[in-house]
Amino acid sequence: MSMTEPPPTITVGEYLLHRLVSLGVHHLFGVPGDYNLAFLDTVLASPHISWVGTANELGAAYAADGYARTRSFGALLTTFGVGELSAVNGVAGSYAERVPLVHITVGPSQAAERAGAIVHHTAADGDYDRFARAHASVVCASAVLRPDNAAREIDRVLSTALHESRPVYLRLPSDVALAQVQAPTGTLRRPPEVNEKNLAAFRTAAEERISSARSAAVLADFLVDRFQARSALAGLLDAGSLPWAVLSSGKTVLPADTPGFTGVYSGELAAPAARAAIEGADLLIRAGVVLADTTTGGFTHRFEAEAGIDLAPHSASVDGKPFDGVPLAAGLGVLAELVERRFAGPKRAPLPAAAPPDPVDPAGPLTQDHLWTAVASWTTPDTTVIAEQGTSFFGMCTETLASGARFIAQPLWGSIGYTLPALLGAQLADRTRRGLLLIGDGSAQMTIQELGTLARQHLNPVIVLVNNDGYTVERAIHGPRAAYNDIAEWNWQAVPAALGAADALVLSAITPAQLDTALHTAAHTTDRMVFIEVRTDMDDVPELLHRLAGNVQARNGGEA
Amino acid sequence: MSMTEPPPTITVGEYLLHRLVSLGVHHLFGVPGDYNLAFLDTVLASPHISWVGTANELGAAYAADGYARTRSFGALLTTFGVGELSAVNGVAGSYAERVPLVHITVGPSQAAERAGAIVHHTAADGDYDRFARAHASVVCASAVLRPDNAAREIDRVLSTALHESRPVYLRLPSDVALAQVQAPTGTLRRPPEVNEKNLAAFRTAAEERISSARSAAVLADFLVDRFQARSALAGLLDAGSLPWAVLSSGKTVLPADTPGFTGVYSGELAAPAARAAIEGADLLIRAGVVLADTTTGGFTHRFEAEAGIDLAPHSASVDGKPFDGVPLAAGLGVLAELVERRFAGPKRAPLPAAAPPDPVDPAGPLTQDHLWTAVASWTTPDTTVIAEQGTSFFGMCTETLASGARFIAQPLWGSIGYTLPALLGAQLADRTRRGLLLIGDGSAQMTIQELGTLARQHLNPVIVLVNNDGYTVERAIHGPRAAYNDIAEWNWQAVPAALGAADALVLSAITPAQLDTALHTAAHTTDRMVFIEVRTDMDDVPELLHRLAGNVQARNGGEA
Repeated sequence: MSMTEPPPTITVGEYLLHRLVSLGVHHLFGVPGDYNLAFLDTVLASPHISWVGTANELGAAYAADGYARTRSFGALLTTFGVGELSAVNGVAGSYAERVPLVHITVGPSQAAERAGAIVHHTAADGDYDRFARAHASVVCASAVLRPDNAAREIDRVLSTALHESRPVYLRLPSDVALAQVQAPTGTLRRPPEVNEKNLAAFRTAAEERISSARSAAVLADFLVDRFQARSALAGLLDAGSLPWAVLSSGKTVLPADTPGFTGVYSGELAAPAARAAIEGADLLIRAGVVLADTTTGGFTHRFEAEAGIDLAPHSASVDGKPFDGVPLAAGLGVLAELVERRFAGPKRAPLPAAAPPDPVDPAGPLTQDHLWTAVASWTTPDTTVIAEQGTSFFGMCTETLASGARFIAQPLWGSIGYTLPALLGAQLADRTRRGLLLIGDGSAQMTIQELGTLARQHLNPVIVLVNNDGYTVERAIHGPRAAYNDIAEWNWQAVPAALGAADALVLSAITPAQLDTALHTAAHTTDRMVFIEVRTDMDDVPELLHRLAGNVQARNGGEA
Repeated sequence: MSMTEPPPTITVGEYLLHRLVSLGVHHLFGVPGDYNLAFLDTVLASPHISWVGTANELGAAYAADGYARTRSFGALLTTFGVGELSAVNGVAGSYAERVPLVHITVGPSQAAERAGAIVHHTAADGDYDRFARAHASVVCASAVLRPDNAAREIDRVLSTALHESRPVYLRLPSDVALAQVQAPTGTLRRPPEVNEKNLAAFRTAAEERISSARSAAVLADFLVDRFQARSALAGLLDAGSLPWAVLSSGKTVLPADTPGFTGVYSGELAAPAARAAIEGADLLIRAGVVLADTTTGGFTHRFEAEAGIDLAPHSASVDGKPFDGVPLAAGLGVLAELVERRFAGPKRAPLPAAAPPDPVDPAGPLTQDHLWTAVASWTTPDTTVIAEQGTSFFGMCTETLASGARFIAQPLWGSIGYTLPALLGAQLADRTRRGLLLIGDGSAQMTIQELGTLARQHLNPVIVLVNNDGYTVERAIHGPRAAYNDIAEWNWQAVPAALGAADALVLSAITPAQLDTALHTAAHTTDRMVFIEVRTDMDDVPELLHRLAGNVQARNGGEA
């Protein structure tokens, strides 16, 4: 007989919230629906978690993603069928971009399920697993909870989300959320599993490779962030005198003033310093890298993906030879030791300041060139820049932000409309940072209703709405004057007040001088949302996008 | 050697559009994305089909559904991954409510697929079938088109949509849309398949049942509409002197002035005339009926679902004995002959006019009771009423509309936000009818961006926005003062002009007199959108909803 007291019983809903809080989740995003209302009572009663009602479920999913990118885990709650399916694109984006979160959906009672009852939010055929099946391809684990497995399944599913850094899915019948289970014990966060034998073999292979390398460089990407390897990467870069670059998807994984930084590498489209460093290295060390079309200038990177040392989340390889069970941070630790011996040297210079931009006529039309430079120079260490996957991303990803500023974007999944709700999540996850959203008009129309949610939460972001009359990113690719790239003409100056942000300071800029004034005002107006509508020409695109567009169009015609 | 000329070759995209036009589709809803732009050139070049760009993909799906309910088939076009997944909840609603449409998505080229390229809108793992799998549980047929199967697969999939009256899914790699195929021949629409032997057996069984019945009544529902059996139902009701009723989901399947109509049957919650007719009949004939919780007063219908004569889309049963291969219209035709012999008689009276409502203080606060009665009496034969699944649906479903008016709602799927884009689709499908949208503030926030699309298409609906400070339908069920039933406070008077409907006439009503004036003005303002914000109390709900709410809450607690 055990001498320890058994843990007290609590409801399944309370158990789940307890586990979420232990992962750093203090905000739950979502939309109520009649099946989830009783569970929502549990949420409201929790002193550790706040309910954030969004205008729709896609907004909740995007917000949970932005939250998780800032705080390491996110959660959204929807109702069965109608609610959960509205969120599925957001969850899929988290899957693609390796953002860990849980999508909780509460459905009809077990009694209704057993009876095959034709209740609302079903397809009238008694099939209650239909929506879990729809989720199966966009999550890494899922479960339908029952009173006798709920605690175990919650732990299994959330642990898998942590291990994979991907979304998971939980469905609770409404009565299961209220069933009693024993309170949780132990922790879900565990250090990544290491295969010591493989780690030693990796060390041997890496040592041989490094000792014979004439030169080395490091290319880092977003998986360094997702798998908690930022400080290990910093350690590697501190250990030796190596040039390094990031893919645009890994921008701000370390500050731009880290010695040896050569900028953003994007294949043929990259600036000379980054190209020389990455393509000219005898040994390329890749840390958490995903080589996607949008981040490699359309697969124009010039290095052999099988050569060099590659560090993936849970495995490493040396010249193509794989070593399983080598976590990213552990691999970086090994390399730091080896690099210190082979490539010790004086600290490299930081990235030189960009050449001052060509002078512009302060009263002339605002160009995208000027816009992104001006916005980047506005950033401070506590700015979180969130750049929509249109001209905003392609314009900002090559700009140098203030050291310490963070950059959130979605270049792989690329779902337009993502960033406005992601801003909501990022701001709630860390109120000490100020969000700077850069978004085009076509994208903003997708998810505009969450502007009201930002206001309701008393958040103070700066939103730069780039009004350029439609889908300019697509005009650059195909159909510059085709009707399908046009959108409804909104009165953006009136949008914040109409949609619940009556307190927002609304500004506009059609010239560089007006932009400077607006940004200056925004810097000094920190008690509320600042919404700046800027006008740029419908064909004005960042140079990087211009060069990428032809490549994309050629591949859509059939070339891989 | 054949003497007939082979049909000319056209592109796969043209083939698909040709088939859609043959099904009555003249508008294609959707959002561009770089993979589908070349296909969109084909759409723009078609003289028979118009592109309707919506603000987001869920709006496109809902609009295609509203279009199909009005014109018998609908279509939406999205881009791979991000676009198609955003639409999936709308497609699922069409599946549940038996609305035939096709979701077309255009993805990366076959070369990219073969290479497993890590292109944007994928999960970076070369799995290009992920999103088709996510759709599999919400469509009745799907295909990934290749040049050598495209024509055959398009025909198979669209034919299945017609047969099942449900959505289907087609994915085209971008290059396949441009591949050449032979132009279509023949037609996709065929009469439903009849099993003559079973039809004869059904006739014998039905004859025996009808000849011995002391009395009979007819209960009709929405599948009569979906399976083109309206005129067959009218024939049955014309053949004999039978009382009949509809479920709320089948409202306006025939005009309310059809003799013998007793109103909407909703189990215990129905008015006495409908209850007496349906529950008191010795023989109940059910035509295209689905017994859902929301339409049966929470399963309080008082008749044996296995007894009587039931006509489903492709089968019939007599006292539970099934007869496959008996299409709904054919079954109704058989019954008309039998009923004419057994239940001939003088025409029954039409539904008596509702008792005049209790007089209200014209300057007092507006109540939901008064609102729905006033709106119903405003309808004309060319009105299409679209009622959101909140207080609007429960308030309107028991009101008597003008003969010829049509009613669109989604009581089974019940996805809030559906109706605003559905209005867009219904209006474009038939510009001779005027849409009257009834929607609450919480629902409208879900999909408000399509207001701009309505304006861009120069449509002239009347929109009654019921501003009652949140999710009143949920307050009635659970948590009347819980924070999760609150929403962001919008300035509804400013919304149309901000979101692109600058021409809209914006009115408001907080008293019965103001409502009367606003409706009168709306009737005479037919050249543009009229947006009427009405205020009702946050706890004011239709009687039907009030009575249903307790039932719903009990079942969420665990009772089936």
